[in-house]
Amino acid sequence: MSTRGWSGEASEILRVDKGFRLADVDPGDRPGYDGDKKSGQKDLAVGIESLGQLQERLFAESRTGDTTDSVLLVLQAMDSAGKGGIVRHVVGGVDPQGIALTAFKAPTDEERAHDFLWRVEQRLPEPGFIGVFDRSHYEDVLIGKVRTLAPEQEIERRYDAINEFEAQTSASGIRIVKVMLHISPEEQKERLMERLERPDKHWKYNPGDVDERMLWPRYMDAYQTVFDRTSTEVAPWHVVPANSKWYARLAVQELLLKALEAIDPQWPAADYDIEAEKKRLAAS
Amino acid sequence: MSTRGWSGEASEILRVDKGFRLADVDPGDRPGYDGDKKSGQKDLAVGIESLGQLQERLFAESRTGDTTDSVLLVLQAMDSAGKGGIVRHVVGGVDPQGIALTAFKAPTDEERAHDFLWRVEQRLPEPGFIGVFDRSHYEDVLIGKVRTLAPEQEIERRYDAINEFEAQTSASGIRIVKVMLHISPEEQKERLMERLERPDKHWKYNPGDVDERMLWPRYMDAYQTVFDRTSTEVAPWHVVPANSKWYARLAVQELLLKALEAIDPQWPAADYDIEAEKKRLAAS
Repeated sequence: MSTRGWSGEASEILRVDKGFRLADVDPGDRPGYDGDKKSGQKDLAVGIESLGQLQERLFAESRTGDTTDSVLLVLQAMDSAGKGGIVRHVVGGVDPQGIALTAFKAPTDEERAHDFLWRVEQRLPEPGFIGVFDRSHYEDVLIGKVRTLAPEQEIERRYDAINEFEAQTSASGIRIVKVMLHISPEEQKERLMERLERPDKHWKYNPGDVDERMLWPRYMDAYQTVFDRTSTEVAPWHVVPANSKWYARLAVQELLLKALEAIDPQWPAADYDIEAEKKRLAAS
Repeated sequence: MSTRGWSGEASEILRVDKGFRLADVDPGDRPGYDGDKKSGQKDLAVGIESLGQLQERLFAESRTGDTTDSVLLVLQAMDSAGKGGIVRHVVGGVDPQGIALTAFKAPTDEERAHDFLWRVEQRLPEPGFIGVFDRSHYEDVLIGKVRTLAPEQEIERRYDAINEFEAQTSASGIRIVKVMLHISPEEQKERLMERLERPDKHWKYNPGDVDERMLWPRYMDAYQTVFDRTSTEVAPWHVVPANSKWYARLAVQELLLKALEAIDPQWPAADYDIEAEKKRLAAS
């Protein structure tokens, strides 16, 4: 079934299946979407409405205890790939009362004293919410691996730990939507340069960004291993080409919409006597 | 200085000063704003842009450690007065990355085992954020008083404890904007009746709402005491007539805008050598 400008299911087209090779993905591509930027922006605006309505229904259903469903969007990417733009333009269209956003930074001393999944578990969305992880437990097998922040054996252990954790999470009613925003190194260079050129963007630039950038091939290898090891049936990865910001936003919105449509939340029936309450209210 | 359709400073016009009497406020009034609903909605849309820009600058400034400023909006009201609409339509216009929203429910057992301010302290906004409390520590002297959930002496102690807590909070760089949305009991009856009449609103209705409604005069007394005891120079209360939803949203937006304008956040200067970084990036 195609919706809006999509020629097929974004969740299938972008999904990481067996044999997937990140090196084969063109970050400038816009797979599955036939429209241009203008129609993409129009579709994004329409989708914001739908996403908001679906989330409100999910929230309503959860309040009466009729469901334990929620959605968790996991966002990973190289610097400047557009995670912030997704949060602002896709997630930002939803009522803040239904959003649970966590931006994971380098772990604190307390966090480091626990298993790497400890801080993540605490931030899983409650029923009815759309949770968003801006970075996640995958940092522990990305920068963790590239920078050797943990012994090789420990990194190795983490892939299985992640799969087990995500299987449990999924079984508890949380639909996990994992997204890597994929830009080209050339596109990143332009975006970082823009941050250096505009005084209102200087604060977004960090000299460390270039240090990481110099390790680009090693990061791509680490992502490939993440995809090989942790793209599972219950929690598959999606690689979203992100040189076109508008396409990436539309694609992530589409993935969220499909996750919510699959839950198909309904307005819950009243768990009180409506007519009796009308009388009581009228008399009050 | 008047801005947009305001004939004066909303923060002064709506502020609870010595001698304030809640009974004198007409919930159907629209003090300080000369425009009609249409111009009010237009001004709200303009304000969303400004609020977003100010918050981004505040956030930027906080990232470089140049400031510890943040803003905390405390929302209190009788049921259906429009707290949710404020969160959706005023706060919802700001990038979710800069918002820290907490909806306080009846305290859990763990929370009850601590002082009433314990759970509130943990939810204070970090520098750079706009924190929003949907209900707050004031519940402990509102429903807490009306329903005698604590001994009279303990309720009495809490007003001073709140003032001390808010003085410290304010001194730490958090600008506290306290708002009571004030509707009439007649308006509430209509809004609750609408929830009973629309299947997509049934989940928002709770029979307990009518129980609280029956205690309306006692709640108004409890609010009056709150205003008498806790409207301080560093954290004054504002009573916003809220029978007109559009006016209430515009007024709360104006209060937030003024709080941010008073901070007057600036884009921080780069704490790195811009030209050296440009070269390093270009060579990477």
